Amino acid sequence: MFNKGIKIIDLGVDYRLDTQNLYQEWYKFKHTSAHLLKAKIYGLADIENEEVLNSNFIANPGCYPTSIQLALIPLLKSYANNIISISCVSYSGTSGAGKSPKTELLLSELDGNAKAYNVNKHKHQPEIEQELKKHGMKSPFSFTTHLLPIARGIYSTSSIHLNYEIAESEILEKYLSEYANSKFVRMRKVPPEIKWVVNTNFCDINVSVKNKTVIITSTIDNLIKGASGQAIQNMNKMFGWDETLGLLNNKKN
Amino acid sequence: MFNKGIKIIDLGVDYRLDTQNLYQEWYKFKHTSAHLLKAKIYGLADIENEEVLNSNFIANPGCYPTSIQLALIPLLKSYANNIISISCVSYSGTSGAGKSPKTELLLSELDGNAKAYNVNKHKHQPEIEQELKKHGMKSPFSFTTHLLPIARGIYSTSSIHLNYEIAESEILEKYLSEYANSKFVRMRKVPPEIKWVVNTNFCDINVSVKNKTVIITSTIDNLIKGASGQAIQNMNKMFGWDETLGLLNNKKN
Amino acid sequence: MFNKGIKIIDLGVDYRLDTQNLYQEWYKFKHTSAHLLKAKIYGLADIENEEVLNSNFIANPGCYPTSIQLALIPLLKSYANNIISISCVSYSGTSGAGKSPKTELLLSELDGNAKAYNVNKHKHQPEIEQELKKHGMKSPFSFTTHLLPIARGIYSTSSIHLNYEIAESEILEKYLSEYANSKFVRMRKVPPEIKWVVNTNFCDINVSVKNKTVIITSTIDNLIKGASGQAIQNMNKMFGWDETLGLLNNKKN
Amino acid sequence: MFNKGIKIIDLGVDYRLDTQNLYQEWYKFKHTSAHLLKAKIYGLADIENEEVLNSNFIANPGCYPTSIQLALIPLLKSYANNIISISCVSYSGTSGAGKSPKTELLLSELDGNAKAYNVNKHKHQPEIEQELKKHGMKSPFSFTTHLLPIARGIYSTSSIHLNYEIAESEILEKYLSEYANSKFVRMRKVPPEIKWVVNTNFCDINVSVKNKTVIITSTIDNLIKGASGQAIQNMNKMFGWDETLGLLNNKKN
Repeated sequence: MFNKGIKIIDLGVDYRLDTQNLYQEWYKFKHTSAHLLKAKIYGLADIENEEVLNSNFIANPGCYPTSIQLALIPLLKSYANNIISISCVSYSGTSGAGKSPKTELLLSELDGNAKAYNVNKHKHQPEIEQELKKHGMKSPFSFTTHLLPIARGIYSTSSIHLNYEIAESEILEKYLSEYANSKFVRMRKVPPEIKWVVNTNFCDINVSVKNKTVIITSTIDNLIKGASGQAIQNMNKMFGWDETLGLLNNKKN
Repeated sequence: MFNKGIKIIDLGVDYRLDTQNLYQEWYKFKHTSAHLLKAKIYGLADIENEEVLNSNFIANPGCYPTSIQLALIPLLKSYANNIISISCVSYSGTSGAGKSPKTELLLSELDGNAKAYNVNKHKHQPEIEQELKKHGMKSPFSFTTHLLPIARGIYSTSSIHLNYEIAESEILEKYLSEYANSKFVRMRKVPPEIKWVVNTNFCDINVSVKNKTVIITSTIDNLIKGASGQAIQNMNKMFGWDETLGLLNNKKN
Repeated sequence: MFNKGIKIIDLGVDYRLDTQNLYQEWYKFKHTSAHLLKAKIYGLADIENEEVLNSNFIANPGCYPTSIQLALIPLLKSYANNIISISCVSYSGTSGAGKSPKTELLLSELDGNAKAYNVNKHKHQPEIEQELKKHGMKSPFSFTTHLLPIARGIYSTSSIHLNYEIAESEILEKYLSEYANSKFVRMRKVPPEIKWVVNTNFCDINVSVKNKTVIITSTIDNLIKGASGQAIQNMNKMFGWDETLGLLNNKKN
Repeated sequence: MFNKGIKIIDLGVDYRLDTQNLYQEWYKFKHTSAHLLKAKIYGLADIENEEVLNSNFIANPGCYPTSIQLALIPLLKSYANNIISISCVSYSGTSGAGKSPKTELLLSELDGNAKAYNVNKHKHQPEIEQELKKHGMKSPFSFTTHLLPIARGIYSTSSIHLNYEIAESEILEKYLSEYANSKFVRMRKVPPEIKWVVNTNFCDINVSVKNKTVIITSTIDNLIKGASGQAIQNMNKMFGWDETLGLLNNKKN
């Protein structure tokens, strides 16, 4: 298809990982199109990537991976060698689990409730690690997912321990620079709230540093920035259109 | 007072920390009873502590600290030297913020929402670090708090990176042993849910290990185990009564 | 069975209605045990009924019917001839719809939401009408059900128009008298809240009168007073035991 | 002001009522601008009213009154003489109570909860009665308000008892005709859900008839259709602009 000049954006997990081995390990099946795994461009839309502009085949990132990569990539680009460990904890609204009726997703089960799930085995973990390593990650990494008793939105908290003290202002500078041209990443002076991004394509990020500890909070709407919204953004970029086309009508705040 | 044999259990923060310096640093005031800071016993009720039995003055732990210490102490006792870093992320129901009317705690503000708050400056952090160090903690430690859109319950996720692989079964063994006689800590085979402990004095804990990563999830009702319930448990112990007296009527599940 | 002295309390709908015709009309099936429909005693536990004490076969009322009958029976007993119309509107938590997974009951669908359902055709309607007529109801009656975005609890609002003005105090007197010996109906001076009764067997009721309008609000926990709790209460009565046996441990407020 | 040709849309309650007496009775103060009470046009935007087009001074309806009037006016226009009684029950999200911090509006108080409030004394009642009478209402009327544990949205259920049977299709015809040109009232074949209208200026309505009972459910977003959205709609009409200007960007569903 994409050999004929047709442009493809794949929203599923089928091409996000780069190797057959990772599909075997995490999904327990043999991926039969190894050449396409190499041909696709991973389309994290707010990280500048010339390849997207010329690509005919984009694998659209998952919702959790989007919230975490946007939070960590600027840090990794400058300080990967100084990071002792990265621990990510994400909470997601239930729409992230889809619309199929399951008892555990009933309001009766989840109202007033919260819980971790798929601990140490969430299928988004290899996607996140694969991409963060491309940006230099060498440290131990963990990723733990939870269910929030709300319909939409993901909140990710990344705790990073450094091997020396870096001023918050210095780190923040890297983020402001990285996202200076981004249309959809907003750096916040306080920890963001999920409702600031619900029904939008924005990712809101806050960086807090104390001594050698960096806490980065980031939030997106899993159904927009974490899925179709980012796909539209990628489409706009692929076709050379205004990146925000179709994505600002639903702005809130 | 307690010199006259009157037994005191203090539910506030006034005696939890051990030094005047910590009060100066985190609370910005000069604590005027240094001798009482030394005299009090820190009453984390499910960790065996002979001193509680003979004490006349107990400082009752805070809600976040209870959920995190019960999750980490058994690990620290055996593996403190092998821990690279500990990163704790806690989510709390809004009753943890008290009953004073504040706009940010209105249902209108929080329904469908979640957010981090007091990042890198939550006043429970020094209490947690102080106590974990007594159990051997040497590694970097972080603690980040969030608001959940529910009334009651705390969920804590502790991510620990080790310097070598330890089997989950080996670690779990330490927990089962530590809590063999505990009336209110329940080790769970899957990540616990907040609703399993709401309206009870229980703390439910799950340990998950993969390679060198340990994820420990723990949950309590902040209004019972995280406050008055634990105080009653401490009272029962101080007076040599059955530890569960008055605490099982509200059992759920 | 009950002919042999075995006592039966049926929690389902199978014997609540009195005639085969009603089952045919509302449930579209032919009820094959007409004699049992006559033999059963309808066990609305807080309305005094000598027959329950000697019965071996009780049909336990439904959840909506319990909340509405307890709200209306004292009024009907004294003023049925003065009532122009009765309009009941009930909102129920989602546990009333059971635990089977259905898309419409997912938290993703209901969070921040509410809606009417089964309008003019809820199967509890004939049960309510049948019983209210036994207490004198002659007026037009309607009953409309809604889903609340919470797990437990029913809130019923009954709007009654009278043909002459009656003082609130006079009407309230009838309620206080009716429930003077009731262990589980609490007359409230303000409209009750669902959380006052959740996890309990109580039904809280408020009566408000202005001119010729009577508004009665009532609330129960559909899973206790509206089901198993009332069954236990009926069991206690059938066996001549203390009516509250097993039902006060879960008291709140 | 409006004498000088300046156009005014008042969003508050100050001019909605027509007489000083009503302000005295319900608000306990003496309204000092009786001439303005007469001069204003009550701007229920989806009911055709030539006067709005030429008016310089519109009193914008309240949120509850909008949801109820749109539900009842078409019925009253044709069947006012056949109505025995009208009983309205409304549930509102907490944003209807404003943003001032009050303990009773905290998430801690309302999560998993619901309750009636201001029974028989809600200040929107005289506004509703005043307007419905202009459309012919002669019957007894009641209006009872409740709090829903959600941030936005009003759900109103109107129960009407008729003195003879009218076919649902006949009644529905009146609604379809009344709203044929309305841009923001949508007649629904099933009871609407609050989430269908949240973040929009729509009012969704369903009519269900059985025998002599009519149940009308209607829902709006109290912050848009019930306030600023309807004000914008009125402004568009006053100035002869497209009625939907500025009101469709936030469309959902």
